[in-house]
Amino acid sequence: MPLFTEQASNWRDLRVHPSFAPPLPRLTPEFVPPEDEIERYEVVIVGAGPAGLMLHLLLARYGLSDKSVLCIDSKPGTLKSGQADGIQPRTLEVLKTLGISDEIENEACQMWEFAFWNISDDPVKLIERRSIVPEVIPPARFPYEATIHQGRVERIMETDLLRYSPRGVMRDTKLLSLRIDEHTDAEFPVIAEIEVNGAPRVIRTKHLVGADGAHSAVRKSVGLSLEGQSLDYIWGVVDLVIDTNFPDIRRRCAVHSSAGSAMVIPRERINTGEYITRLYVQVPGAVESGSTDTDADLKKEAKGKRSQVTLEGILKQIEDVFKPYYIRPKRDDAIDWWAAYQIGQRVCPEFIVKDSSGLGRVFLVGDACHTHSPKAGQGMNVSMMDSYNLAWKLAYQINGLTPSSSDKRKSDALLDTYHTERHANAQRLIDFDKKFSSSFSDKVGTIESKSGISHSEFVDLFSTGCGFTSGCGIEYVDNLAVDKSSIARSSPIVGDDFMSGVLCSGRRLLNIKLKRFADGWHRDIHDDLPSTGRFRLLSLLTNDLLDTNGVSAAAVNNTATLVRQFPESLIEQIIIYPRLPGEVTWEGIPKCVKEQNEMTFYNGYELDDAYRTYGVDPARGALVVVRPDGYVGMIGELDDIFRIYAYLGRIMSLAT
Amino acid sequence: MPLFTEQASNWRDLRVHPSFAPPLPRLTPEFVPPEDEIERYEVVIVGAGPAGLMLHLLLARYGLSDKSVLCIDSKPGTLKSGQADGIQPRTLEVLKTLGISDEIENEACQMWEFAFWNISDDPVKLIERRSIVPEVIPPARFPYEATIHQGRVERIMETDLLRYSPRGVMRDTKLLSLRIDEHTDAEFPVIAEIEVNGAPRVIRTKHLVGADGAHSAVRKSVGLSLEGQSLDYIWGVVDLVIDTNFPDIRRRCAVHSSAGSAMVIPRERINTGEYITRLYVQVPGAVESGSTDTDADLKKEAKGKRSQVTLEGILKQIEDVFKPYYIRPKRDDAIDWWAAYQIGQRVCPEFIVKDSSGLGRVFLVGDACHTHSPKAGQGMNVSMMDSYNLAWKLAYQINGLTPSSSDKRKSDALLDTYHTERHANAQRLIDFDKKFSSSFSDKVGTIESKSGISHSEFVDLFSTGCGFTSGCGIEYVDNLAVDKSSIARSSPIVGDDFMSGVLCSGRRLLNIKLKRFADGWHRDIHDDLPSTGRFRLLSLLTNDLLDTNGVSAAAVNNTATLVRQFPESLIEQIIIYPRLPGEVTWEGIPKCVKEQNEMTFYNGYELDDAYRTYGVDPARGALVVVRPDGYVGMIGELDDIFRIYAYLGRIMSLAT
Repeated sequence: MPLFTEQASNWRDLRVHPSFAPPLPRLTPEFVPPEDEIERYEVVIVGAGPAGLMLHLLLARYGLSDKSVLCIDSKPGTLKSGQADGIQPRTLEVLKTLGISDEIENEACQMWEFAFWNISDDPVKLIERRSIVPEVIPPARFPYEATIHQGRVERIMETDLLRYSPRGVMRDTKLLSLRIDEHTDAEFPVIAEIEVNGAPRVIRTKHLVGADGAHSAVRKSVGLSLEGQSLDYIWGVVDLVIDTNFPDIRRRCAVHSSAGSAMVIPRERINTGEYITRLYVQVPGAVESGSTDTDADLKKEAKGKRSQVTLEGILKQIEDVFKPYYIRPKRDDAIDWWAAYQIGQRVCPEFIVKDSSGLGRVFLVGDACHTHSPKAGQGMNVSMMDSYNLAWKLAYQINGLTPSSSDKRKSDALLDTYHTERHANAQRLIDFDKKFSSSFSDKVGTIESKSGISHSEFVDLFSTGCGFTSGCGIEYVDNLAVDKSSIARSSPIVGDDFMSGVLCSGRRLLNIKLKRFADGWHRDIHDDLPSTGRFRLLSLLTNDLLDTNGVSAAAVNNTATLVRQFPESLIEQIIIYPRLPGEVTWEGIPKCVKEQNEMTFYNGYELDDAYRTYGVDPARGALVVVRPDGYVGMIGELDDIFRIYAYLGRIMSLAT
Repeated sequence: MPLFTEQASNWRDLRVHPSFAPPLPRLTPEFVPPEDEIERYEVVIVGAGPAGLMLHLLLARYGLSDKSVLCIDSKPGTLKSGQADGIQPRTLEVLKTLGISDEIENEACQMWEFAFWNISDDPVKLIERRSIVPEVIPPARFPYEATIHQGRVERIMETDLLRYSPRGVMRDTKLLSLRIDEHTDAEFPVIAEIEVNGAPRVIRTKHLVGADGAHSAVRKSVGLSLEGQSLDYIWGVVDLVIDTNFPDIRRRCAVHSSAGSAMVIPRERINTGEYITRLYVQVPGAVESGSTDTDADLKKEAKGKRSQVTLEGILKQIEDVFKPYYIRPKRDDAIDWWAAYQIGQRVCPEFIVKDSSGLGRVFLVGDACHTHSPKAGQGMNVSMMDSYNLAWKLAYQINGLTPSSSDKRKSDALLDTYHTERHANAQRLIDFDKKFSSSFSDKVGTIESKSGISHSEFVDLFSTGCGFTSGCGIEYVDNLAVDKSSIARSSPIVGDDFMSGVLCSGRRLLNIKLKRFADGWHRDIHDDLPSTGRFRLLSLLTNDLLDTNGVSAAAVNNTATLVRQFPESLIEQIIIYPRLPGEVTWEGIPKCVKEQNEMTFYNGYELDDAYRTYGVDPARGALVVVRPDGYVGMIGELDDIFRIYAYLGRIMSLAT
């Protein structure tokens, strides 16, 4: 019989809600739109697909309110026409740091294996499985590719967005025109004409982001276009509930038969209890390719050929490719969606349009600035990751957290790194995609093969490409926010197997498991890198930590001082120690560790071996700056405190 | 540039939503309340704490609509007064099978370690840490205890409930009286008088469940009471943000000092970024105990003593126990909640009240039928698990899925197992709790120790008790739904380390990792045991699977036939194979495996070794029935098909 006499604080009841991300500090004055007839924002986002939603969600979580940010979309509701379905391991890692990966982890299809089927030497077999390889080769927190309806991913983001932004996306709203006019309104120089439910309206904003897809009105308004080669083959794609005796229908497969090529993408389970499959199949006969997206005649011709493609034709072609296996829709109404498409690899030469002072005003993200084939499963991922790269830089600029952002009319070098990093990435991705998708349309390993590519070369291409396709091997070029000088100098890093986790400026920090000193909790280091816009200073201490005059004791004291030089809460510390000659106690190590980092102080050897994985010598240690997007910004020696200070000082303003 | 010609089915857009649990089949006619002036239900639940919410949620997910189920609660909103904070590993496993564990996994505090502090021989030290043991000793999917505000757990359940039940809980509604009257309305014999926002109303129902706490009005209305010994010591409990140099403040601790005893329970992080701690401390001076809950004088005296306890007194006592360490609230407003309490171990002799035909009509769950001290962290857990045990049995009865349930006025043996299983469990828990909590109030390992218990005995008590405290070691007694005869007969099970996973009728099936044959997906077997009310028939095949005349081939064909004898979808199959002499292909094994169990056919050795963990000889195999609540119902040989049929036939009706 519980008998209580009790008393509670009145803030206790608030604890029933899910927690909210802490907003970024703001050094500029709170945004209050001037009180006149003109509608003004700090950021306007055009398009609420995966890229636009991700950007809006991040800015809202960083603390920009609905007064500051407006996201518009021409469609009346959440997506009807999106067709992407793959979520890369790296994208899942990012969604996890936002606390919105659970539904995908639980309910998406997980692709763990990739099977390669080729023409068999045995004329009865026709095709045979040559090998099965893991779908995701580099280590990753989620060692699979997830497949799920794009609309569902958007709904998940929007649900979380509405916790932070009461307005959410303003739908039924079209961008009519756009210009930069510094004379009319120097502080809000981007002037956009929009149509809300049919009624025109003019708005002004400091920055505008075009997330409005491959046919981007934003891109066209600023006079940019996608450049590069266009389309070769026509492909058919169909989502359906399948009936087949093909044995690998639940694995991702590349099938090269004498009748043509196909790809199998297993998809999620649906409410009937059945599983969806996506099939890509090449439609016989190529199309001429145009070199720009304005080549009207070729576009027309291609459209004509595409319009001749029918569902029946696609299903017939699938039937032929998979022979002698049967493969067909399970029922008459088992077709979920189908399409015929051609895709060229194109990229926009500029991702940022600047004003006369050099400050970025218009940004392009996602399909608005690059397109590629869906074969490598990049669609949603690259788009969302563009926004993930841009969001914190934009928020730092707006909140006055970059060194130059206190001056309203000055260029901002941090903001410029968005183009530097993501344009180079898009270009590399496209180069890979060209090779990968053309080898796909080829008869691999046969005499008719035009590329002359062998089966093992095709598997190699997939394996090395897995850095891209998983998102885990992406490496940003040297720039203001990626200091690669430690590679040139004597580096504390041993080894160069960066794909397996060895630290490298410009690559994402690999997740590892660490045991927390304070409570023995087995934690993922990524759970200490939530997407809250903060930098993290990761100290991998040396095995002399128990020596009060040692390098490590000095390092923890120095870094404790260092983080105080920058705006409060903007740099969080994570401290890892290696196997030590004696027992660790709070009394035996510098006081500042418990005072400031009690809950981010980790045993780095009992679970995963942090030192071996990250390529750090426990006798030498390392200081590692991890950017808000999880990428390593710079690596230094434990006593490189001034180089770290200089790196951070180029990116963020000092504490006031 | 993606160029699409596309077409989508109109059901595609529905895929953006989270998935819903498939309802149970219903053999009885759909419930349509008779059209007269009288309000009727199939189930009325009184109380929407953890037990009531869990029951309502399960019934709603099983397919009982708001017409059929009504849940009332006297409070105006979600919990203000709940004080439980611990979620056991087993409860987490259950919440996971409902798809509602994510927020707790992500945001609760995870207790991984338990530290024992005792009086030191060194007079300067006063107290010292004797040992640290894992908080959860038996293997479990979640190897920690989670701590989080009870209100939050309720909010999580209620959010999911509202996906299935548009009405949700009817609040501000009090039970005034209750009686069983078979003469007035034989089909709806439970007549309850309730008060909705102050207005009286009479409702009738087939079944009523009292989930209304230790002071249960339902229990009192049916003339039952909690029996057993009451209270010895008064304890103070306080939730606060703490400032201390006590080194184990983030571990669960039992502290026995010469000033008294205390327990530390680390709690979740809150929005300020700070962490909450719960401290239990014994208040000096015992109270007399009464033997029933009607012992008015003793209750009054106890209440008087409790009311003398102040926050200042509790904090002073904490200060004394933890000396020489300092321990205090971090700020003036750092106290979240505090209370003084006494708790006796009591249990109600009957959990079910039956009508004249022997059919269960009124049920008690949670604190309404048993109470114990909060030391073992059982509060929410046992209550929710009562409902988890009752829900599927009640739904089977109502839906006509039990053999006798077609007859409206007949007793139902399945329903009776609720009392058999949960009363015995409550009694055992109370016996453990008495020992554990009295040893807590003692000066362990000292001359003054009354119990004479040594430190290692106390640690042993904790370790063996961990079967209860984790929820993972619970074993139901032999009954209609737990067939233990295989233990008496020659059993296919090798070993008896049931706590480590060896199969045992009456215990929950341990989670293991299996690799799915169809797609290579590394899956948790618990993910094939979602809480949808279905039975699962788990076949652990033998190493002769590739022999078409072997035992395994016969078994898969026989079980495929067996499941068709019962209502459709009610029994799901999971098939596991051991290491085989040749390669497994779909062609090399009986057809029915791919046709019926393509997505539940598993490699049982490449990840976890299912055979070793479950104690099954790969040369002999086993058939295992897992009940809808995840407990093993019976274990047979691979050819025990008729015994399995007989077991299932006692519990569920045959296919019509």
